Amino acid sequence: MLNPKKSTNTIERSFVKTLTDVGRGIYVPRWAISSNEIGTGDRWCIEKCRIHGGTSDSVDIITVDNGKLSFVVVPTRGMGIWKGDYQGLFLGWQSPVKNLVHPHYVDLEARGGLGWLQAFNEWVVRCGLSNIGDPGVDTVIDNTGKEKEVMLTLHGRIANIPASIVKARIGLDPPHELGVEGVVYEQSMFGPNLELTTSITTTSRSNSLRISDVVGNLRSVPDEMQLLYHCNFGSPFLEEGTRFLAPVQRIAPYWTTKVTENFDVFGPPESGFIEQAYFMRLLGDDEGYTKAMLVNGDGTKAVSLSFSVKELPCFTLWKNTVSIEDGYVAGLEPATSFPNPRRSERERKRVTNLRPGERYHAGVTLSIHLGKDEVQKVRGETEKIRGEVEPVVIKEPVLGF
Amino acid sequence: MLNPKKSTNTIERSFVKTLTDVGRGIYVPRWAISSNEIGTGDRWCIEKCRIHGGTSDSVDIITVDNGKLSFVVVPTRGMGIWKGDYQGLFLGWQSPVKNLVHPHYVDLEARGGLGWLQAFNEWVVRCGLSNIGDPGVDTVIDNTGKEKEVMLTLHGRIANIPASIVKARIGLDPPHELGVEGVVYEQSMFGPNLELTTSITTTSRSNSLRISDVVGNLRSVPDEMQLLYHCNFGSPFLEEGTRFLAPVQRIAPYWTTKVTENFDVFGPPESGFIEQAYFMRLLGDDEGYTKAMLVNGDGTKAVSLSFSVKELPCFTLWKNTVSIEDGYVAGLEPATSFPNPRRSERERKRVTNLRPGERYHAGVTLSIHLGKDEVQKVRGETEKIRGEVEPVVIKEPVLGF
Amino acid sequence: MLNPKKSTNTIERSFVKTLTDVGRGIYVPRWAISSNEIGTGDRWCIEKCRIHGGTSDSVDIITVDNGKLSFVVVPTRGMGIWKGDYQGLFLGWQSPVKNLVHPHYVDLEARGGLGWLQAFNEWVVRCGLSNIGDPGVDTVIDNTGKEKEVMLTLHGRIANIPASIVKARIGLDPPHELGVEGVVYEQSMFGPNLELTTSITTTSRSNSLRISDVVGNLRSVPDEMQLLYHCNFGSPFLEEGTRFLAPVQRIAPYWTTKVTENFDVFGPPESGFIEQAYFMRLLGDDEGYTKAMLVNGDGTKAVSLSFSVKELPCFTLWKNTVSIEDGYVAGLEPATSFPNPRRSERERKRVTNLRPGERYHAGVTLSIHLGKDEVQKVRGETEKIRGEVEPVVIKEPVLGF
Repeated sequence: MLNPKKSTNTIERSFVKTLTDVGRGIYVPRWAISSNEIGTGDRWCIEKCRIHGGTSDSVDIITVDNGKLSFVVVPTRGMGIWKGDYQGLFLGWQSPVKNLVHPHYVDLEARGGLGWLQAFNEWVVRCGLSNIGDPGVDTVIDNTGKEKEVMLTLHGRIANIPASIVKARIGLDPPHELGVEGVVYEQSMFGPNLELTTSITTTSRSNSLRISDVVGNLRSVPDEMQLLYHCNFGSPFLEEGTRFLAPVQRIAPYWTTKVTENFDVFGPPESGFIEQAYFMRLLGDDEGYTKAMLVNGDGTKAVSLSFSVKELPCFTLWKNTVSIEDGYVAGLEPATSFPNPRRSERERKRVTNLRPGERYHAGVTLSIHLGKDEVQKVRGETEKIRGEVEPVVIKEPVLGF
Repeated sequence: MLNPKKSTNTIERSFVKTLTDVGRGIYVPRWAISSNEIGTGDRWCIEKCRIHGGTSDSVDIITVDNGKLSFVVVPTRGMGIWKGDYQGLFLGWQSPVKNLVHPHYVDLEARGGLGWLQAFNEWVVRCGLSNIGDPGVDTVIDNTGKEKEVMLTLHGRIANIPASIVKARIGLDPPHELGVEGVVYEQSMFGPNLELTTSITTTSRSNSLRISDVVGNLRSVPDEMQLLYHCNFGSPFLEEGTRFLAPVQRIAPYWTTKVTENFDVFGPPESGFIEQAYFMRLLGDDEGYTKAMLVNGDGTKAVSLSFSVKELPCFTLWKNTVSIEDGYVAGLEPATSFPNPRRSERERKRVTNLRPGERYHAGVTLSIHLGKDEVQKVRGETEKIRGEVEPVVIKEPVLGF
Repeated sequence: MLNPKKSTNTIERSFVKTLTDVGRGIYVPRWAISSNEIGTGDRWCIEKCRIHGGTSDSVDIITVDNGKLSFVVVPTRGMGIWKGDYQGLFLGWQSPVKNLVHPHYVDLEARGGLGWLQAFNEWVVRCGLSNIGDPGVDTVIDNTGKEKEVMLTLHGRIANIPASIVKARIGLDPPHELGVEGVVYEQSMFGPNLELTTSITTTSRSNSLRISDVVGNLRSVPDEMQLLYHCNFGSPFLEEGTRFLAPVQRIAPYWTTKVTENFDVFGPPESGFIEQAYFMRLLGDDEGYTKAMLVNGDGTKAVSLSFSVKELPCFTLWKNTVSIEDGYVAGLEPATSFPNPRRSERERKRVTNLRPGERYHAGVTLSIHLGKDEVQKVRGETEKIRGEVEPVVIKEPVLGF
């Protein structure tokens, strides 16, 4: 497994291919590299192409296949991850939105600020960077220095902005690190100027991928930032009896959710089910790292997320066990705050403030675990972080803590 | 003439070319087939290309030419029909919007929900599928299961969504059926998931084309659907003295329109003319089929629409005899409901409800008739449907009946 | 220097290349011509290409280089001018929005009507044509002939509409005139139908370029029009001590700006600086031509704008001396009106009314002046227009005069 604490900066010998760099006039429509070209015993490949037709027209995708795990990075959609495959098992979920949707077709303002949902079908999609969470009115400072009330749309803009710089990076020494890097700008004159620099890496035959992000405030004045990793799982990891495991310190239901009982167990697909969400604070180890898991009914399949509670202190569990057609899905959502409207989060001092030029580091490692032994081993790691601590369960909906 | 009652499913021997299938990674930018390749005495062709530049950039069009009638299907704009030509006569109208507009450039929310008008220039454009009609506030159910008031924009989304699947189909036996098929998804997580499957067909040297649509509710819960075929005619079929003919059972003016007198006769282009609209119920024959027509002043040119009043029970006649520059046009609009705001139509029980998985069939046959004899013959068919029935004329504006 | 009064219609022998004509199916993705092909002693070239990737994907640009002055016209963004270079000096400014943004990514309605700012980074960008200025509610006439309140977004649509026709034109006789011509349509059914025809020209080794525009009302009814040339300068023409010079007849601060003292001197970049703006009426010469300048601290570098106060009677000076990162910039903005919300301008009778078919001519010549002598000479021209007139200084913010 990739060590989530290991910086990717330690790679010394690597091959780098720039696929897009708008400022330098570089754009490569189609490209591939594989273990055939860089001598190694293990089979791997990275392949870039552009989709044509329908609402996916002009969407660039990059498929990284490490020999066991493959996943599809989408530069055109803010460097999200569309879907993956681990030893034949699907990673992601079946959204009612069938195909990848180019940001061109997304009007975030539509349907009262819920337009984001018209393109929501990724395995991992970042929410942010200026705001995350439910649509809501908030006060911003406009060009004249005056306060202005504006409508912030669901989960912000970043998933619908294409990357301006995209690179592939391959480590020349075994185990070959395979990575896709990108830079996405969420910019406006007289508004936020946030730079997301991401590196999404795996190694040959690994069961993990690591998302390492840096969000920089490019303005010369302080500004706010919010970041949430919306990691979504359907079948086969989500099924009746799938269980959520994490070193929960404190938990409370979201306002739409009435109870915390059995919050950690998932039901079968159920037509008309109303989504439930739970806000949590998770414990970390000595260095602040924690692990949250989904384990299927018979304990033979699991996925885990590793991340730092210092970087991502708020965790939301999303249970949307509707019918398969309507998007049966579990969301594991580590974030800088809870997904309430930004104004509400600011009042509770959970919106991140960045000084001029300040950079905020955050990241998530996603791993897949197959077989009872391996699953049990990772459960043990989660339990070790929890230690003897019993979670504080708040039974009434709150806006977080 | 194509028999509107004949299912296209009866074609047994046909050649099919998939031009777009996003899910399968198929996209053909340029393609053509003609009678030269499939042996036949009659000349016909189907040609697909992509337009570049301006607001039409990246719009795909497919021209079907049966030897006498040609028309241009626009997969990028929800499988509408841009314009046509019948023996040298133009089919369509001169909108002030000159070129085909890619959905990218259309912000449906603009100008208070009237953004749809910035791209409105087709001969036949579908309105729907979640809503048709004037912009208006309506209540929807959001992700939390709660009611939410949202603004629905003019005539809905379907005309600004590209088809995800596009095929050409050619019947191998005379009279060769020439068809374009497409699938368009109007989808959102926590929102409508409607699938439009359309087949637009003609036969070699026919004076008709047939639009056969199926709208499916892909959700596992019931949902609403609205569908209107906005069929628009300018010169030479519309001119001073052009007359509307149909077996009208009941008619009333739209709220902007004061009188029903002479509703069936069109005036010359008139700068500053304010649009008039009339809501109607039409009679059908024993099987429910009806026919509505425009006949020019001297009775030598006509167009007709044939459709089932069971499928499309509400008919709107749109008289917009403004100046040529501002869009001199007559609209014949068979639909599932009247184009009032959806909330108003729901109150009057005219919004179609679809059960989970339910499919709704609808279609229109457009035909062109030249020469007094042919025109007179079709008038006779219309009159036969009417029989002895005198229309009920409601003189005050109503919201329909 | 180009004579701003000289019509480009006097060119008799020229080579014309059509690069885009949507109506005629013409689109040339990549093209170039240079002095190598058309015999001349002086080096010049015109080059057209399309940018790929990021938010610039599918943006067409045309670079005109006259041997001393080069500039980049952007057909995809309403024929604005992205940036330029004069003898190695940068023309334009460093917007926080790094790359050219395709209109597809711009939602003008976002952030309370300030979405325009998400793409604002050009040297010269037109505001208009239906409205310019701050977002604001205004009354329009809708399809039913009734008044409707709509939100007009910041600075209108024209900068985010691609040209439907684009041509390059090269004069065959020395001094070779080098030009880019374009036609942009701002159209809607039941709404404005304004046609911008622009010609952007320079001559071999000139220090000037001329923008000559014609805005036509294509409707058969009268309509309103507003046009502002947002000409923006950063380093090296803007620096601490840069001075604004023009034959000011009357000046008043914009509502956000408190004082007129030292309005003509620019400060250094200052983090957190709140923009200032000044409304002015400028004097013209006998034919109505005026000249506004920026002169740097030591008087060795200057830019000037020449235009007719008959065509563009309202002038706004924009001082936005924020930090370099946040967009240190001076705006010289000749216009048909002041950039207040349209309703406010209409009340003050400053919105231009166009009769059916009427065409409005306007234009600006931008020139660069280097060296004390040349700068001093142009200052003299400005002072000559002013003569003995002392400006009327209004100290309290007003909405113009």
